[in-house]
Amino acid sequence: MLRHVQMTQGFPNCIGIGVLGYDGVARAHIHGYTRIRDVFGPEAPLPRLVSVCGRSQDKLTKAALRYGFEKYTSDWMDLISDDEVKVIDNCAPNNLHSEVCIEAARHGKHILCEKPLGRNAEESKRMLEAVQKAGVKHMVSFNYRFVPAVMLAKELIDAGKLGKIYHFRARYCDDSLVNPETPFAWRMDKELAGSGVVGDLGSHIIDLARFLVGEFKAVSAMATTFIPERPLREEKGKRGKVTTEDAFTATVEFQNGAIGTLEASGFCPGRKNFNTFEINGSKGTIIFDLERLNELEVYLDDSSEPTVNGFRRVMTTDPSHPFCRYWWPTGHIIGWEHTFIHEIYHFLRCIKDGEDVGPIGATFEDGYKCAVICDALLASAESHQKVDIS
Amino acid sequence: MLRHVQMTQGFPNCIGIGVLGYDGVARAHIHGYTRIRDVFGPEAPLPRLVSVCGRSQDKLTKAALRYGFEKYTSDWMDLISDDEVKVIDNCAPNNLHSEVCIEAARHGKHILCEKPLGRNAEESKRMLEAVQKAGVKHMVSFNYRFVPAVMLAKELIDAGKLGKIYHFRARYCDDSLVNPETPFAWRMDKELAGSGVVGDLGSHIIDLARFLVGEFKAVSAMATTFIPERPLREEKGKRGKVTTEDAFTATVEFQNGAIGTLEASGFCPGRKNFNTFEINGSKGTIIFDLERLNELEVYLDDSSEPTVNGFRRVMTTDPSHPFCRYWWPTGHIIGWEHTFIHEIYHFLRCIKDGEDVGPIGATFEDGYKCAVICDALLASAESHQKVDIS
Amino acid sequence: MLRHVQMTQGFPNCIGIGVLGYDGVARAHIHGYTRIRDVFGPEAPLPRLVSVCGRSQDKLTKAALRYGFEKYTSDWMDLISDDEVKVIDNCAPNNLHSEVCIEAARHGKHILCEKPLGRNAEESKRMLEAVQKAGVKHMVSFNYRFVPAVMLAKELIDAGKLGKIYHFRARYCDDSLVNPETPFAWRMDKELAGSGVVGDLGSHIIDLARFLVGEFKAVSAMATTFIPERPLREEKGKRGKVTTEDAFTATVEFQNGAIGTLEASGFCPGRKNFNTFEINGSKGTIIFDLERLNELEVYLDDSSEPTVNGFRRVMTTDPSHPFCRYWWPTGHIIGWEHTFIHEIYHFLRCIKDGEDVGPIGATFEDGYKCAVICDALLASAESHQKVDIS
Amino acid sequence: MLRHVQMTQGFPNCIGIGVLGYDGVARAHIHGYTRIRDVFGPEAPLPRLVSVCGRSQDKLTKAALRYGFEKYTSDWMDLISDDEVKVIDNCAPNNLHSEVCIEAARHGKHILCEKPLGRNAEESKRMLEAVQKAGVKHMVSFNYRFVPAVMLAKELIDAGKLGKIYHFRARYCDDSLVNPETPFAWRMDKELAGSGVVGDLGSHIIDLARFLVGEFKAVSAMATTFIPERPLREEKGKRGKVTTEDAFTATVEFQNGAIGTLEASGFCPGRKNFNTFEINGSKGTIIFDLERLNELEVYLDDSSEPTVNGFRRVMTTDPSHPFCRYWWPTGHIIGWEHTFIHEIYHFLRCIKDGEDVGPIGATFEDGYKCAVICDALLASAESHQKVDIS
Repeated sequence: MLRHVQMTQGFPNCIGIGVLGYDGVARAHIHGYTRIRDVFGPEAPLPRLVSVCGRSQDKLTKAALRYGFEKYTSDWMDLISDDEVKVIDNCAPNNLHSEVCIEAARHGKHILCEKPLGRNAEESKRMLEAVQKAGVKHMVSFNYRFVPAVMLAKELIDAGKLGKIYHFRARYCDDSLVNPETPFAWRMDKELAGSGVVGDLGSHIIDLARFLVGEFKAVSAMATTFIPERPLREEKGKRGKVTTEDAFTATVEFQNGAIGTLEASGFCPGRKNFNTFEINGSKGTIIFDLERLNELEVYLDDSSEPTVNGFRRVMTTDPSHPFCRYWWPTGHIIGWEHTFIHEIYHFLRCIKDGEDVGPIGATFEDGYKCAVICDALLASAESHQKVDIS
Repeated sequence: MLRHVQMTQGFPNCIGIGVLGYDGVARAHIHGYTRIRDVFGPEAPLPRLVSVCGRSQDKLTKAALRYGFEKYTSDWMDLISDDEVKVIDNCAPNNLHSEVCIEAARHGKHILCEKPLGRNAEESKRMLEAVQKAGVKHMVSFNYRFVPAVMLAKELIDAGKLGKIYHFRARYCDDSLVNPETPFAWRMDKELAGSGVVGDLGSHIIDLARFLVGEFKAVSAMATTFIPERPLREEKGKRGKVTTEDAFTATVEFQNGAIGTLEASGFCPGRKNFNTFEINGSKGTIIFDLERLNELEVYLDDSSEPTVNGFRRVMTTDPSHPFCRYWWPTGHIIGWEHTFIHEIYHFLRCIKDGEDVGPIGATFEDGYKCAVICDALLASAESHQKVDIS
Repeated sequence: MLRHVQMTQGFPNCIGIGVLGYDGVARAHIHGYTRIRDVFGPEAPLPRLVSVCGRSQDKLTKAALRYGFEKYTSDWMDLISDDEVKVIDNCAPNNLHSEVCIEAARHGKHILCEKPLGRNAEESKRMLEAVQKAGVKHMVSFNYRFVPAVMLAKELIDAGKLGKIYHFRARYCDDSLVNPETPFAWRMDKELAGSGVVGDLGSHIIDLARFLVGEFKAVSAMATTFIPERPLREEKGKRGKVTTEDAFTATVEFQNGAIGTLEASGFCPGRKNFNTFEINGSKGTIIFDLERLNELEVYLDDSSEPTVNGFRRVMTTDPSHPFCRYWWPTGHIIGWEHTFIHEIYHFLRCIKDGEDVGPIGATFEDGYKCAVICDALLASAESHQKVDIS
Repeated sequence: MLRHVQMTQGFPNCIGIGVLGYDGVARAHIHGYTRIRDVFGPEAPLPRLVSVCGRSQDKLTKAALRYGFEKYTSDWMDLISDDEVKVIDNCAPNNLHSEVCIEAARHGKHILCEKPLGRNAEESKRMLEAVQKAGVKHMVSFNYRFVPAVMLAKELIDAGKLGKIYHFRARYCDDSLVNPETPFAWRMDKELAGSGVVGDLGSHIIDLARFLVGEFKAVSAMATTFIPERPLREEKGKRGKVTTEDAFTATVEFQNGAIGTLEASGFCPGRKNFNTFEINGSKGTIIFDLERLNELEVYLDDSSEPTVNGFRRVMTTDPSHPFCRYWWPTGHIIGWEHTFIHEIYHFLRCIKDGEDVGPIGATFEDGYKCAVICDALLASAESHQKVDIS
């Protein structure tokens, strides 16, 4: 017997979403919204893609059709003043983070903002104050918190499996900048981006450091720009001056006494998306690598079985692992885009159920604290001195 | 300026899909259809989830809502006689493969059928004859052909990069059966499933062997059932007799002179989805492992640089790799489910453009040839003799 | 205060050694003897390099000086009739194994013979009977038993850590034969070698299979010769006919019900010394690879900690690991040659203390049983039938 | 026909060796001398183990017999004034490095000194001046330069295969200190050792950085002592104060513009001998790990074959690799101790042939420059400022 489905049935309380941006990471965000029902089932909060905003009229039309938005606009004030939009997802370049988010908060919208929060700590602080004043939910898209392996790392640390933490070291490296003919981009303009790899890649590993190990006490950094000029895309034969850093290295001291290193660079041939960390505690070690995000290497000092101690390659795809019961049978890996599905699900659930975004999700407060550390890294690289994080 | 999108606009020629099944692998198929527009853009054929068929009325309602089907039915004749349905996607258990597919072919439907095609060669042959007679498009869901790394392996072999092929060996192993209290399932009943791991896991690696190396000449096999009885889910305390094999090992000879081994087992603790192969040719070697499906290990004998020869861990996420230009920047991995998106896109494109499903996709002819080899493996395990593949 | 050392002091009971051969693996044996005192200390039996035998007078002189032999001879009867020689170490080509060993046994010498024991089971049986009749100690140089990781694997299996064994699979592959211009060698002449990769590489993994899993019940094999002719070293422009197999693949059944595969080939580009096995039992899995001989991968099903189960990369360099207390601090790896030091120490200790060579060391009985299986592999490849191992 | 060998024949020009120490790393040195003839053949300089010096009379006697020294003494002045001794090998604790070496130089002995050279830059400088004044050969035992994979890395860099160097990062970590009950040792006493992990582990990676990338421009460091007191071996129940650092992290700037990080720690559970570095240049990347010292990971940007670019696991055991033609067939790995054989061979050959120890071997000048950097690391950790290396 054939039955017809009323699609509206059962989904009375959709959450209207407005997205600023449609390319790059915005596409990953948009995809995240479309998977919530399918992955998490009917109990999950159901997002509704209300409106998308961007600069190019032509691309906007296509993006709206391709991803299923009901409306589109090239004026972001349209987006944040739309009554059907409850959540603003800000995937604009860094220079549009603060203005849009602050205005969106004034309009009472919940906000998911791409990282880094602001271009610096001062800008980030104003954003934090705006959302706090407005009483809206706020999250920074530090999506790597939502990798099952990273979440498992946090669970193991919080459960004391690693004991007292002695070391954290992280690198986020790729080879995207190594070719000197790679064209100039907005991330190379300090005015637009605030900083280079510090804000782009470094902010991710700073956030993971805080998420997993705790607050920073001090940093000491070096930064450099290997290729000072790059060809301009718009003007054939001309080159633009790179005003942000290509790479940085840093030592870091945590409030709990652990020490470590941080590094980000686009000049590491063969490294494609090498966001890696290693944490050592008195009882064990954890290693993660985003290029193999379905795995976590875990060493637990088991003196009862000394002959078989070793780093365990844990496939984090078991139903017992964070988020994995929603996915496929064990051993069937997920991809990079799935981290956004987890993140967005968390955010929408917090909105729907009135729960706190933190400490699991990164709030604007986390985004601000991260910005303080980014500023300190750049200041230390300038002053050649260790900078305390207050 | 705000614009409203007419969702029907631009998609006049949707392809109506009817899916038999909603759990397990059917969920991966269904997800595949929903991603075509988002991933491949407006030029791609657009599937429309018309109807879903299953046994449980309650689950059907939920599945229809969750995945966005317009209708649902518990009678598969409804599904295949639905005029709005152009493609039947058969994810039913093996015993429903032949009857449904043959009837669907009679109704002029294009068919995507889960592997193995039939429960044996005879059944598979009738299915092949039915689709050939009906002149419809047909594909067996050997989705691992559509892993970018596997497709790259095929490209390298076809381009002669490996030279003359000497060896192929493949294993598809996991630990899903190692617990003797794992309950009885339909795959353990020869009547329903046709065979055990031979058809379930073995068919995948047989298909990959044919896809990558070529036709078989002979096989010689051993098969065994380690746990002869398993607890029945429905009847507490009772056990059902396992009438299919738990594991097999085989040697294989190809028509091109290569020799190798095949193996499948559910009794390999720690192996979670270990579908792996290694191919050696006169000029190089290729290694693949489904647990790390975004990588291909490649050794190319480069006598001009002997000191730096070695297995290369190629991350198959570059825009130059098969299907990857539709995805994320290099280094941002995809997951298991994405193989179905690629597969379904290929099938829909063949339907839309009137192109051949093979040799890229596995046709029912491939499914039949695979079934012949499966039968030969089981016959050899019985007869203790090498069995020629005619 | 300076003291002078009397070098003879404290070593009254040296064991005189006579070695047949000085190149290739003989060099590894000879080195083994010279390290016993240094590695195992003053309690260890002390070998004395009495005499070396080979064909080339010139090379013999050099070898004697280089390695520290007291005498040399080009007549092996000199070697085995030398009263100062207590142990004959036979590193001659396969065709000289039986005659020399049988005669040496008659002269009451203890014998260490390179693998394979004889060129076939019949020859091996006569060698076994000779040493048994003479009552001398006998060992076949299956040195991979003496890799710490392999010894650890045996300990884990014997202690029941893997539970009931379900699968064993082993490959010994390299790329030494893949170049068709690699010259003809004695191993390619069935008359001299008995067999090709079956006896050369296959015998090693057959011995490991028996050592770790137990006796064989049946085998079924395929064998092939990819390059039928090779250039003769002695006669420029001429080619010799290869009468042994280049590669084999086999399935194997053990008396305990386990099944598996065996393979050896010199046609695997990139594989350099890839002697690898994987063993699955009801409770765990073990993986070994000779190219990383200081590691053992171990998976133990620990249901009390499901979230951190995974393959453990155990560095087998801890003092708690077999033989490792004699070596360096943990993490300081040993090399391939050290397996011979362990093996020779074991043999000399058995001679000195009157202990049994087996089951730790491989006796001539093990060598014979291995030869029976080698013969069965070749017979099965001929007959296309499974061959039972009685 | 049996011939007797005159052992003295052919070795008229032995080089007399005197070793200070017999345990730990001294044992690896001593072993190195005994292998020169066997490994490098009759053309190699032949060392003669003349005399060994240590504190315990009983252990000295045993060591002399075990390793084959002709004499022994507990007074190091005996050793360095012995006319038969041409080379002093100083494996004493750090506090005995300068006094013994300076006196040995005065006696005209060539000197191999364990690392670090002196306890600080000042002491090291006096040692350098002494050997320069005496005109003797001098080498610091930075043995990791003599790992074939490291030597290959140097060859690749020097040949420009990596292009302009952008990054160097190295860690030397183990878990030897993580247990708080690990007893107090001389390395924890600043007076005896000069520094903790900085001089012990850090000096190795500093030397490799200079060897591979070039001179330092500046460093900025953090250092800490996690366990301030440890049980005294000699006095049950009492604890000694640890006056050296347990761990350090640093950022480093090279004169060629590259930046990177350095780290050493004994608080990394699961890391056993993890001396690892990664170097990125404009054209490629190199990765090394001492736990797998027979491998080098190499990425070369090959834009002509973009689909198969990836990190190559190069087994550095081929005859074309540094030192490997003296060893076994490709794929047969060497161990940690073999680095000392290479190093000692190099030193003896320089003595015999009157060649320069550097730039391949580390001279006392290298040892001094390393000490300057060690001092700078500790100074930076104190001052919280970047320290320039003049």
